[in-house]
Amino acid sequence: MDPNISALRQKLADAGQSHLLQFWNELSPEEQAELTQELEGMDFQEINGFFKNAMQTSNSSKQGKMDCRMEPVPREVLGSVTRDRESVKDWELTGLQCISKNKVAVLLLAGGQGTRLGVSYPKGMYDVGLPSHKTLFQIQAERILKLQQLAEQTHKTKCCIPWYIMTSGRTMESTKDFFSKHNYFGLDKNSVVFFQQGMLPAMDYNSKIILESKGKLSMAPDGNGGLYRALGNQGILDDMERRGIESIHVYCVDNILVKVADPAFVGFCVQKGADCGAKVVEKTNPTEAVGVVCKVDGRYQVVEYSEITLATAEKRDADGRLMFNAGNVANHFFSFSFLRDIVQKYEPQLQHHVAQKKIPYVDAQGQLIKPEKPNGIKMEKFVFDIFQFAKKFVVYEVLREDEFSPLKNADTQDGKDTPTTARHALMSLHHRWVLNAGGHFIDENGRRVPAIPRDGAAGSVTDDGKRNLKDGTDLPIKCEISPLVSYGGEGLEELVKGKEFQPTLTIDKEGVHQLVKNGV
Amino acid sequence: MDPNISALRQKLADAGQSHLLQFWNELSPEEQAELTQELEGMDFQEINGFFKNAMQTSNSSKQGKMDCRMEPVPREVLGSVTRDRESVKDWELTGLQCISKNKVAVLLLAGGQGTRLGVSYPKGMYDVGLPSHKTLFQIQAERILKLQQLAEQTHKTKCCIPWYIMTSGRTMESTKDFFSKHNYFGLDKNSVVFFQQGMLPAMDYNSKIILESKGKLSMAPDGNGGLYRALGNQGILDDMERRGIESIHVYCVDNILVKVADPAFVGFCVQKGADCGAKVVEKTNPTEAVGVVCKVDGRYQVVEYSEITLATAEKRDADGRLMFNAGNVANHFFSFSFLRDIVQKYEPQLQHHVAQKKIPYVDAQGQLIKPEKPNGIKMEKFVFDIFQFAKKFVVYEVLREDEFSPLKNADTQDGKDTPTTARHALMSLHHRWVLNAGGHFIDENGRRVPAIPRDGAAGSVTDDGKRNLKDGTDLPIKCEISPLVSYGGEGLEELVKGKEFQPTLTIDKEGVHQLVKNGV
Repeated sequence: MDPNISALRQKLADAGQSHLLQFWNELSPEEQAELTQELEGMDFQEINGFFKNAMQTSNSSKQGKMDCRMEPVPREVLGSVTRDRESVKDWELTGLQCISKNKVAVLLLAGGQGTRLGVSYPKGMYDVGLPSHKTLFQIQAERILKLQQLAEQTHKTKCCIPWYIMTSGRTMESTKDFFSKHNYFGLDKNSVVFFQQGMLPAMDYNSKIILESKGKLSMAPDGNGGLYRALGNQGILDDMERRGIESIHVYCVDNILVKVADPAFVGFCVQKGADCGAKVVEKTNPTEAVGVVCKVDGRYQVVEYSEITLATAEKRDADGRLMFNAGNVANHFFSFSFLRDIVQKYEPQLQHHVAQKKIPYVDAQGQLIKPEKPNGIKMEKFVFDIFQFAKKFVVYEVLREDEFSPLKNADTQDGKDTPTTARHALMSLHHRWVLNAGGHFIDENGRRVPAIPRDGAAGSVTDDGKRNLKDGTDLPIKCEISPLVSYGGEGLEELVKGKEFQPTLTIDKEGVHQLVKNGV
Repeated sequence: MDPNISALRQKLADAGQSHLLQFWNELSPEEQAELTQELEGMDFQEINGFFKNAMQTSNSSKQGKMDCRMEPVPREVLGSVTRDRESVKDWELTGLQCISKNKVAVLLLAGGQGTRLGVSYPKGMYDVGLPSHKTLFQIQAERILKLQQLAEQTHKTKCCIPWYIMTSGRTMESTKDFFSKHNYFGLDKNSVVFFQQGMLPAMDYNSKIILESKGKLSMAPDGNGGLYRALGNQGILDDMERRGIESIHVYCVDNILVKVADPAFVGFCVQKGADCGAKVVEKTNPTEAVGVVCKVDGRYQVVEYSEITLATAEKRDADGRLMFNAGNVANHFFSFSFLRDIVQKYEPQLQHHVAQKKIPYVDAQGQLIKPEKPNGIKMEKFVFDIFQFAKKFVVYEVLREDEFSPLKNADTQDGKDTPTTARHALMSLHHRWVLNAGGHFIDENGRRVPAIPRDGAAGSVTDDGKRNLKDGTDLPIKCEISPLVSYGGEGLEELVKGKEFQPTLTIDKEGVHQLVKNGV
């Protein structure tokens, strides 16, 4: 027998995972080689430790306990675009200054595949059907480009916002190919850095790793909190240090409205001397399924909606707002030194969360079984698990309609977080930009269209025929402004002020275009 | 020639409506008789006056003008269930006392047909698919019954809440039949009073009444503000006076969550000495398509979303809330004396609103034409047009998730205000009632289900298998509580406290039922 195999057998036996080789003799030499390679790269003692700790934590956390430990975000750590309007401009200037000094990086969590969206490629490559047919990746890339230009214009100095993109093993190649094929959307190739999040095996309730076929383990990404481990072991932290990065904006790929490297958010966090910050939107319905940022036992964390009792979710302040209303939108700020401490010191202390799943497996007879009930767990860390280690944590509240519209589901699924809602959210925002810059929209009869379009088929008491532009299937006014023209609504006056437009209106670097039905 | 016809001809000629008889000689004697009858019942001078005034008002109101005249609802006239929590119980007691003294009536606006809903019968007869399959009418009837009982229990005296139901000509018979067939859902037949809103002809832009066939005018209901004229000319005001009614709650049929005769709302208005009040929900998104209650030139009114510029819609108070956030939900309070003054003095002064419509018509050759552009107008008054006449106007703010879920569209139309959203809203409310009364829900494995269900397919970062109860198509926990058991969540502790339930849970006068899948 191959001495390597005998060493591997011993390693597996020591870890109680001998069953992984139960079909060894049925595998082809290629399959044997692949399996050997996979198993030799794994630290089973570590994985067993993860399992033990994760299950312990999971079993000890009982619902109901959380409630009495929760405290809301105090007003003094909160910055709000609606309640601190006079400060926003100042924060933005600070953020732009940091950007101009090459101190700001963005970090994209893009490990997910578009499974629920019904596609097999990375979500960032999805085209939600805008007039331009830009993908999420392109929209984000162009926002970075524009922000660099804005910082350069303001501070008369060349600058760069490095973009770190975390993919999973499954999406790395296609993501890289996509960027390469599109010439990095005009960004400096050397400042777009891909890295890969780790994988962990799925395990059954008896701590045995699950085989998804006779020669293959069931593997899954280790959660978006796998970020921290990956930052360390793939040299990303070193890359940031080399570049002199001081502030990092972390976000998820699926939010079409994301203000990448948002200077106001960055500037707010920097002015407050924060090492860690979370962007939130106001939760207004107690039973909305969103995690909330709050303090637990004096430390900040995101409490998931499934952990909260109704009584707590319904608690209100004297001003009538929900007490726990800081809805997490997966947009975070980290100082570099905080991120370094996390990677080097704190993250290894964190337990994985347990996600019970129905995991297909091969039984002792080698038959593939698709269970109907959860039969095992996947282990994940969350990107916000490290809030608790912040020494100066701040929260920045923004408007949902301006900044948050995630793409999660295909258009067939009950209308929430779909390509249609994402497309509508972006066009509605750009419609508002045009109106606020003094432009107007008219219908085919030359009449001004009201600023507030009817949503859905739910109408007002009157139907005065003013709304011919909307055809009932794509209700907002069709309007798209290239990020290369405007990052956040700025700079549009000279293009639209006092002018009237008939949709579809698109504004890009080449100018203002109206694509009216039936030609023109 | 029949002398009547010649008188009619003269009357029409005087009013410039002679074209209505252009096909007279082609009509059968029956058709001639019907047309004659219809025309003889109409006051063409009045109709022409309506048209002239409505068009004048419509043409003179220019968009943009409204904004600088609008003022928000001052805090001192606002009662809020979230900001004045300590007062709500007291208002409710006052309201119950008024009810116990037979001083409160409800008035239902039920003239609409379920056209957008895709049915040909009145909306109140619609079954949204609750476990009980109750219709909107039945739900509302049972809430009235329960409220009578609550008032009787509290004040040890028999009482009655008369229910005035305004239908249109088209829906009167089927509505009456439906109530009769269901034995008035247990209500006293003599306290369910039907009356009919008026109709007006559709007119082209040259003030000519439109024929929808050679012998038939194109008629439409005169808007929900037709209420006031109907109250007078059908003796409803007299009926109220005879019964000693002092407070009237007016609402629309399509809101499945409507708190009919809501004692807290009534009590608030009575305590404030208001003659007129509006129930509102907070508008949180500037471009939400909802009318807002505000002051215009110092008088209260509802400003439709289509009348507001974006700049005004986006205005915020120092506390970050939208300045114009009092979203109209068509739930109004009137004192009897106010209503009497409206009917007798003020309503006739109001102009009709112009709704431009595509109105099918017969051309000079007698051909039926279905126009592709608006070719004429319908004239409507709105129920809230009379707010301006209030001497003491108040606003009562409630929670949308507790009180407002209108049924407007069929389930195929993009998921807004559909039977599914209505059903979910009711079951979600009843689910919360059970939790707040100390009950719990468990899944088929006996595990407690989190209080906040995942909404839509949009998930959290984890999927821990706790949510097996929800099948992705009908997400809230299936739970329905008969209004005969609880009007607003009260009285459930003895039925549910400390108990665990597996959905579907229904609670009715017979007791608590669990209908678990696969029997039990």
